[in-house]
Amino acid sequence: MKDKKVPAAVIQRMPRYYRYLGDLLAKGASRVSSAELSRRMGITASQIRQDLNHFGGFGQQGYGYNVEVLYNEIGKILGQDQDYNVIVIGAGNLGQAVSKYTNFNKRGYKVTALFDSNPALAGTTVAGYPVLDATELGEYLKENPTDIAVLTIPKAGAVETAKVLVEGGVKAIWNFASVDLDLPQDKVVVVNVHLSDSLRVLSYKLRELRGQEDSEEV
Amino acid sequence: MKDKKVPAAVIQRMPRYYRYLGDLLAKGASRVSSAELSRRMGITASQIRQDLNHFGGFGQQGYGYNVEVLYNEIGKILGQDQDYNVIVIGAGNLGQAVSKYTNFNKRGYKVTALFDSNPALAGTTVAGYPVLDATELGEYLKENPTDIAVLTIPKAGAVETAKVLVEGGVKAIWNFASVDLDLPQDKVVVVNVHLSDSLRVLSYKLRELRGQEDSEEV
Repeated sequence: MKDKKVPAAVIQRMPRYYRYLGDLLAKGASRVSSAELSRRMGITASQIRQDLNHFGGFGQQGYGYNVEVLYNEIGKILGQDQDYNVIVIGAGNLGQAVSKYTNFNKRGYKVTALFDSNPALAGTTVAGYPVLDATELGEYLKENPTDIAVLTIPKAGAVETAKVLVEGGVKAIWNFASVDLDLPQDKVVVVNVHLSDSLRVLSYKLRELRGQEDSEEV
Repeated sequence: MKDKKVPAAVIQRMPRYYRYLGDLLAKGASRVSSAELSRRMGITASQIRQDLNHFGGFGQQGYGYNVEVLYNEIGKILGQDQDYNVIVIGAGNLGQAVSKYTNFNKRGYKVTALFDSNPALAGTTVAGYPVLDATELGEYLKENPTDIAVLTIPKAGAVETAKVLVEGGVKAIWNFASVDLDLPQDKVVVVNVHLSDSLRVLSYKLRELRGQEDSEEV
């Protein structure tokens, strides 16, 4: 499958298709037209066809999409047909929440351990997963090949820790630290969840909405 | 300030400028050229000038940007010069993590209460904040004007709860539920943090990286 040049914006939309198709599947739908999918998702049918054409199309003229086939195909595109070994760096509130995240394991993401620099936490468990001392990270990775690391530590230590992860063969970092990691793109992929950025966008939009309300009142 | 038509992509980048300027400020920098900011942030100087021009520019030819002035101006744009009353819907792991989120209060986001549909949690506290029964939400909002609600409940109840929030005058929803809320845009703004979508984008990129590695080995 040639998908190396799929635009980032299309990739960002794929999980949303996957969610909507999953909902349709759960409701027992066997097929869906692009018009119906368009109405549900609030994007144009033409956009849907364009997006899916990046991966081969999947639709049939006059029939629409087979929900289960499309769900499974998009699942494969999104790597949902595989299992992943996952470690969580940081056993604080966010690290614990991610480790306990509903369905996290059911989806094929297998947490094997958490790491924390607080020695008092080493030896404890979170949701049954062992919490190890952060100094053991490099050694651990040598013996336990790990696909994905979730970074939930403050930004101060995040950049250094990320380097240890890459040296240890981790190929994917889910970065919750409030810092941009500058890592070699041919060795590791990074997806950021910058919560404070997200909250500030919300505050921006709130200010904008209130500005509109005020000008309507004048 | 005329900023109603600022493109969404520009808005998404503003918190990142704010972070980098905050770092520079913490390091004692008083001014920064667009070339230097460009190098640090990995975007072109021309892009930076274009982005900031949406809000009036702020730079001076041959001088660059005054770090503190620009930091404060972008802070105002992002509504960081105000305080917000915040409630958190869902007192599970994620709701607790958000409530305890480092600096959450320091930044002007004041959590006043959490709500949960589990009656066993009502009457408890999280980080000092009271957990109230979800059935009390409508009444609470009548007596306690609330700016922002954080939705950390499963998608099943999220849509109904969002309606109660909007009826109760909440103007901004930070939505962690894995569902798109369909709400009147003139009454409420929504920013989504779809964690499962984000993790699937990471899996996509990991699969893509491994595909590249495989083809290099052939």
